[in-house]
Amino acid sequence: MDRGSKAPIHRQIYTQIRNMILTGDLPGGTRLPSTRTLGMELGVSRITMVNAFQILTSEGFLRSRAGDGTYVGNEWLNEAVTAPEVRRPELSSRAGLSASTRGSDLQRQTSPSWNPEDPESFVASQVGIDLFPTSVWKRLIGRHSEEQSIEMLGYPEALGHRPLREAVADYLRDSRGIDAAVEQIVITSGAQQAINALMLMMTDPGDEVWMEEPGHIAASAAMLANGCRVLPVPIDECGADLAQMPNELPAGRLMFLTPSRQHPLGVQMSLARRMDWVAWANEQGSWLIEDDCDSELRYRGSRLPSLYELDRGQHVVHVGSFSKIMFPSIRVGYVVLPEDLVDSFATAISVTGRAPATLMQAATADFIREGHLNTHVRRSRKTYAQRQEALLRELRNQLGSFIRAEAVDAGMHVIGWLPSTVDDQRLAAQLADKGVYTYALGDYLLERSLPPALLIGFAATDAGHMPDAVNYMVRALRHDGYSC
Amino acid sequence: MDRGSKAPIHRQIYTQIRNMILTGDLPGGTRLPSTRTLGMELGVSRITMVNAFQILTSEGFLRSRAGDGTYVGNEWLNEAVTAPEVRRPELSSRAGLSASTRGSDLQRQTSPSWNPEDPESFVASQVGIDLFPTSVWKRLIGRHSEEQSIEMLGYPEALGHRPLREAVADYLRDSRGIDAAVEQIVITSGAQQAINALMLMMTDPGDEVWMEEPGHIAASAAMLANGCRVLPVPIDECGADLAQMPNELPAGRLMFLTPSRQHPLGVQMSLARRMDWVAWANEQGSWLIEDDCDSELRYRGSRLPSLYELDRGQHVVHVGSFSKIMFPSIRVGYVVLPEDLVDSFATAISVTGRAPATLMQAATADFIREGHLNTHVRRSRKTYAQRQEALLRELRNQLGSFIRAEAVDAGMHVIGWLPSTVDDQRLAAQLADKGVYTYALGDYLLERSLPPALLIGFAATDAGHMPDAVNYMVRALRHDGYSC
Repeated sequence: MDRGSKAPIHRQIYTQIRNMILTGDLPGGTRLPSTRTLGMELGVSRITMVNAFQILTSEGFLRSRAGDGTYVGNEWLNEAVTAPEVRRPELSSRAGLSASTRGSDLQRQTSPSWNPEDPESFVASQVGIDLFPTSVWKRLIGRHSEEQSIEMLGYPEALGHRPLREAVADYLRDSRGIDAAVEQIVITSGAQQAINALMLMMTDPGDEVWMEEPGHIAASAAMLANGCRVLPVPIDECGADLAQMPNELPAGRLMFLTPSRQHPLGVQMSLARRMDWVAWANEQGSWLIEDDCDSELRYRGSRLPSLYELDRGQHVVHVGSFSKIMFPSIRVGYVVLPEDLVDSFATAISVTGRAPATLMQAATADFIREGHLNTHVRRSRKTYAQRQEALLRELRNQLGSFIRAEAVDAGMHVIGWLPSTVDDQRLAAQLADKGVYTYALGDYLLERSLPPALLIGFAATDAGHMPDAVNYMVRALRHDGYSC
Repeated sequence: MDRGSKAPIHRQIYTQIRNMILTGDLPGGTRLPSTRTLGMELGVSRITMVNAFQILTSEGFLRSRAGDGTYVGNEWLNEAVTAPEVRRPELSSRAGLSASTRGSDLQRQTSPSWNPEDPESFVASQVGIDLFPTSVWKRLIGRHSEEQSIEMLGYPEALGHRPLREAVADYLRDSRGIDAAVEQIVITSGAQQAINALMLMMTDPGDEVWMEEPGHIAASAAMLANGCRVLPVPIDECGADLAQMPNELPAGRLMFLTPSRQHPLGVQMSLARRMDWVAWANEQGSWLIEDDCDSELRYRGSRLPSLYELDRGQHVVHVGSFSKIMFPSIRVGYVVLPEDLVDSFATAISVTGRAPATLMQAATADFIREGHLNTHVRRSRKTYAQRQEALLRELRNQLGSFIRAEAVDAGMHVIGWLPSTVDDQRLAAQLADKGVYTYALGDYLLERSLPPALLIGFAATDAGHMPDAVNYMVRALRHDGYSC
C-alpha cells in the first residue's frame, strides 16, 4: 500500500488484486480470504476491503457465493488471460508497432523547443507578450464566458463563429485591402491547421508541390506528412524566383509563398514577381497558398497588394493567423478561399481537428471590432522597431566580427550571418544548451544552398535589456570556443 | 462608388484604379488626370483622391513626375499583366484545380448539420447545455484571462498545459481506474484531432485498419483521409466480435474500438471480448485505439475496466474528450500513450494543428481539480436518465407502431428501429427539412448490414418538453406520408 499515493486505499487494493488476476497469479476459481481477514493482514479497515471487493465483483473479476465466500471469477477468463503475451512486454517487443514509415518520419523531426524560464530567448516566433492588453482581453472574454447558449457552448460552426468571420472580412478589407465576402472566410485554429487541411484537400500522395527554399519548416512538414514531394524554389532579394525553375519540371500542384515577409529570410516579394506567380498559377492550373505571416509588422516601405487581390481569388488561398499579432496561445486564424471550395476545406478541417473554442473566437471578434487589434498592431510595430534597432546595435558592437546582420523591413527576427566555416545547426544547439535560443537557418533548407546563419528574434526582448542579452550570447559563444 | 459600402471612399477608388491597371484597361505609361479634376468628375474631395493616389504610388502602380503629373507605373509590368489569363476566369476553367482524389472525396462527405434555432433537435451528440454551471466556468476563465505570462500567452506546450495533464492523470485514476503517469498524457483539441494524428503516426497509405461496423463516422473519415483501407468488424450485444473476422485476413495495423459505449449502437463490450482484443493486439503486434466516449454517462451496470488498463498500456492508446461531459465548443481532449510514443504523437499534433488555447486548458484543469467536473457528471447522469425515460415513454405512446426503441445503459441517444421497408437516410433528411434532427444509422455503416434505424438523442431536451417534441416528430412523419 502506498499511503503517500493520491489514490484511495480501496482503489489501490482493487488495482493490485485485479492485476494479480489478469497476470494469472490469482487463477480463476481461487477462493479468497474474508474481507475481515484480508483487512487485518493489510492493516486496513474491513469496510475498505468490502469497497474493493464490491468493485471487483461488479466488474466480474470476483464472484461471491452465499455462505461460501468470494472466488476469482471467470467471466473474463479465456486463453488470452493466461497466455504469456498478456504479461507486460518489454518495450523492445513493441518495436514493430510504431514502425509505419510516416510515424518514423515524425519521430525524426525535431521541433525547436525552449524553456521560457531560461535567461535569454531570441526565438524568432516569440512575440512581445508584455505589450498585449490583457485587461481588455479579460473583459472581452468575461463578456462571453457565462453565455448559456447553444451558439456559445454547442459544437462550433464548421466555418467558424459568424461574428468573427464578419470581423475578419472587415479587417482584411480595411487594413489589408482584401475584398472577400464573409462566405469565403473559414476560421482555423491557426496557420498550421490551415496548411495541413489545404494539403489534404488539394493534393494526393506522390504529388509534387513547390516550396520556398529556405522556407517555412512547419509547412514542409505538412506537405511531407500528406505524402507530397517537395520541390525547392530559390529565393533572392525579390522573393521566390520562378525563373530559376527548370522549364522541363512538371507543373506543381501548388506553390507555397510568404510574399509579405519571406519566411525566414524576411524579404518582401516584388510586384513583378507576384505577377509572375499569379500567371504561373493561371497557366498551369495550380494553386498558390499565400501565407500572409507578419504582414502587419512592417517597419519600412509599404505593403504590396496580396497575391489574393492580384489574382482576385481564383487560384490563391490566403492564410492568416492572430498568433503573432495577438498572442500565440490564442490558436485562432483564418483562410480566404474561393467560395466553391469553402465546404471541402471545412470538411478537411473537421477531419483533422475542428474549429477553435467558440469563446476564443467570440472574444477575438470583439477585439477586432472594437479597435483593440489596430491599436495593438500600431503599438507592437513601434516597440518592435525599437527592439530591432537595439538588437542590431548590440550585435554590431559586441559581435560585429562574428555575426553580420542587417535590418529587416518586417517581422520579428533578423538573419545573423555566420563565418562560412561554422555549422549553424550545431551552434544553435550549443547556444540552446546554455539557455540562449535561436533557430539555425540550416533547419529551413531542404538543400544546403545558403551560408550558415541564425534567426535571431527581437520582439520579446525589451530594448533596455538588449545589451545584457547579447552579452550573455557572447559569453556562451566564447565558452564553446568560438572566437568572437 | 458605393456609398453604402463599409470601405472608405478613397479605398474604393484605389481598388477600381488598381483593377483597371491589372486588367490592362489602363496600360503602363498612361497619364492620369489631376487629383482635382478626377475628384470633381467622381464627386469626391480632392483629399480623397490624393489619399487613393498615395496608396497606388506607394505600391508602385502609379508614379508621379515632378511638375508633370501622374502616370501608370511599370514596376509590376511584365507580360503576365496584359496576358488574358489574369482576367477573372470563369469558375469552370478552374475545375481541374480542386480535382485531387482526396479533395473530391472530401467534397462528397456530408457532415450532418442542423440549425440550433429550429424547433426539435434529437441530434445524438448534442449535450444538455442547460445543465452546465456557466457561472463557475466564468469565474475559472476569469482567473486566467488576465495572466500576462509566457506560459499563458506564448505558444502552448507541445504536450499540453502541465496543470491540465496533471489534473487529467488524477481524474483518470480516481474516476476511471486508469493508472497513467503525467508523462503519458497529451492534451488534444478533442477526439477527432487525436484520431487523425494517430492515423498519421501509426499508418502508411494503403495500410489496412479495422473498424467497428457500424462505427464512428468521423473516425472512418480520418482513416480514409490518411489513405487507409477500412475493414468492418461486426458488432453484437457484447461489442465488436473478433471471431467473425475471417482467419485469412491480413493483420490490421490497428483496430478502433468504443468499448464503454459502442458508437452508435450503445452496447458495452464484455470483459471476455476485451481480453480477446488485447490478445489480438499482442499477437499481431497491432494497435488498439480505445475511444472512451461517454464512459461517464452510464446509467445502469458498472463500468468495466478499460482496454488500456487490461493491456496495461502497451498496445492501447486511450482517447478521451471533455466535449460531451462539459460542452462541445470547449475543444479540449486528451490521449494516454505509451511513454515512448508521446513525442511522435506530439509531432503529429503539431503538423496537423497544435494544442488548444492555453486559457481553455487552464480553466479545464481548475474545473477538474476543484471537483466541479464530478459534480457536473453526477448531475448530468441523473437528468439524462430522466430525459431518456421521457423519450422512451413518448416514443412508445406516440410512435410505438412505427419506431421501436429500447433503453441504453450509457450515452446520449437511443436507437429507434424502423420498419424494414423504410430508407433511414431518406427519412432523416425529410425530418431535417422540417427542423427535426436525428442521424440515420445507415450513415454509420460501411456496408448495409443492419435494418434501418434513427439515432435519437435525448440529452438536450427537457423531460417536460418531450411530449411536444415527439409530437412534432409524429406530425412531420405523417406529413411525409409515413403511417404512424
